[in-house]
Amino acid sequence: MCSTDADARAAFLAELVAAGHLHPTGVPGLYGRGGVFEAVVRGFDALVDAAAVGQSDERRHYPPLFARADYVRTSHIQSFPDLLGSVHAFTGKDREHMELLRKFHEHEDWTRDLAPAAVMMVPAVCYPLYPSLAGTLPEAGRTVDMEGWVFRHEPSDDPARMMCFRQREFVRVGTGASALAHRDAWLERARALLDRVELPVTPVVANDPFFGRGGRLAKATQREQVLKWELVVPITSTEAPTAVASANYHLDYFGQTFGIAQADGSPAHTSCIGFGVERIALALFKTHGASPAAWPAPVRAALEL
Amino acid sequence: MCSTDADARAAFLAELVAAGHLHPTGVPGLYGRGGVFEAVVRGFDALVDAAAVGQSDERRHYPPLFARADYVRTSHIQSFPDLLGSVHAFTGKDREHMELLRKFHEHEDWTRDLAPAAVMMVPAVCYPLYPSLAGTLPEAGRTVDMEGWVFRHEPSDDPARMMCFRQREFVRVGTGASALAHRDAWLERARALLDRVELPVTPVVANDPFFGRGGRLAKATQREQVLKWELVVPITSTEAPTAVASANYHLDYFGQTFGIAQADGSPAHTSCIGFGVERIALALFKTHGASPAAWPAPVRAALEL
Repeated sequence: MCSTDADARAAFLAELVAAGHLHPTGVPGLYGRGGVFEAVVRGFDALVDAAAVGQSDERRHYPPLFARADYVRTSHIQSFPDLLGSVHAFTGKDREHMELLRKFHEHEDWTRDLAPAAVMMVPAVCYPLYPSLAGTLPEAGRTVDMEGWVFRHEPSDDPARMMCFRQREFVRVGTGASALAHRDAWLERARALLDRVELPVTPVVANDPFFGRGGRLAKATQREQVLKWELVVPITSTEAPTAVASANYHLDYFGQTFGIAQADGSPAHTSCIGFGVERIALALFKTHGASPAAWPAPVRAALEL
Repeated sequence: MCSTDADARAAFLAELVAAGHLHPTGVPGLYGRGGVFEAVVRGFDALVDAAAVGQSDERRHYPPLFARADYVRTSHIQSFPDLLGSVHAFTGKDREHMELLRKFHEHEDWTRDLAPAAVMMVPAVCYPLYPSLAGTLPEAGRTVDMEGWVFRHEPSDDPARMMCFRQREFVRVGTGASALAHRDAWLERARALLDRVELPVTPVVANDPFFGRGGRLAKATQREQVLKWELVVPITSTEAPTAVASANYHLDYFGQTFGIAQADGSPAHTSCIGFGVERIALALFKTHGASPAAWPAPVRAALEL
């Protein structure tokens, strides 16, 4: 990242704030979304709806939190400890409350008096789905259409790298062949959708930001096996374009972790396509300008703006 | 709460789960929402949209988190410590990660190795708005249409008492007279909306569940001054009906706390109407049955189901 990139990020963020598309909160990576931003979001979501007719068995919307008991069954704390969000709560009575308030008022660390709640922030919208599918799948497997808010603790001045954002995902759970086919068909479908709103995306083989020295091997393996594709588009840098959608084949990782079996008893394989809701809106503002009124007519029509 | 209520809650939850409207997560008060549930939510939201035309200056959608620096300026930790949610993150390097993993694998309390992040869970959707309005308001004040996810740490077996749920709010910031008028006009508008979907709501003077012994006075004061109204409807108990919307006049509490001034320099007064998105859906399922296909025709038409 060079200083030109930093300047470009700052300039783009300032433009979005001036237009009322994003509202700063004082926390890097955390913004309120304005009405026009949300209209763009709804427009693209409706476009996905239309492309997804007949492509899933059911729709699910989970809250931004999921069970800590499920979190600890995954390897997230090993692979992405720097991104996790753990929710802590106050469980005391009057006496403990008085002590909490004393620390609060005397600027001591009152957060040490809290206890871990039964929930963690959701790292990707498909996480809460897998534990709910424990058991044996129907012969045809399952395909689930999901949306929700996710959390990644990576404070950044890049408006395209938010701490809390939405994903729309289509998740396939079944045989390995069906998971691969789902990933590849949706990668093409996603390209076509992003093409309709005139975003110049490029597919690239991707890898996740596995943490630390131990993460190097995982990163290399994921890349070598070509498990994950991303569709990238320049937002705040042309040299390091931003992923606005990703299609990931997880092998039988979630099937093993949460005891999801195929009809023949072997662990289920899973894959998902995820749309980065905010990043797509940001890419549209970057590519077509801050005011949707001035966007190309076909893009406005596609998004019903 | 008598055992009849507990039975009614369990039976209603079982019905919702069987219908695929809610998906349990193993955490009391935390559920995934199914496709039909979400269609009902979208239907009521569109009804609110239609009633709200011309009733606000702007729309804003904040994430489920807001700045810890703003949280500590409020009295939330004094009034509702039992409901707060504090987000903690891992900020170490490789060495600290190894120690975190050791604790994790040996079932020690690894959460003590986390540090409080710059964010807290949002307790009500209007919280992130006020700090963003610091300064002097325009002469006419401001009215903002908001939606978002909120968190209240009150694990419960009552499906109408969720830990994480959505609110749609209309917030007024300006003179005391305009804040009161906003509250009262929206209370009537909300009654009319809930009447259109044939929910038998009753307005009641309400008070918030201020914590502990110290909270008794605050509770009595709020009630005495008739600051907050709720529209209640039986969901899991006829004796203790559930609030599905509330209209609250905060006097100049938020104006004082966040330095929001009226045009004349005095602290702004605020009020809000909030719709409990999930509770309205649940009240509809309870009142009209688990299958929207069998709901009264006018209700189906109003919700475009």
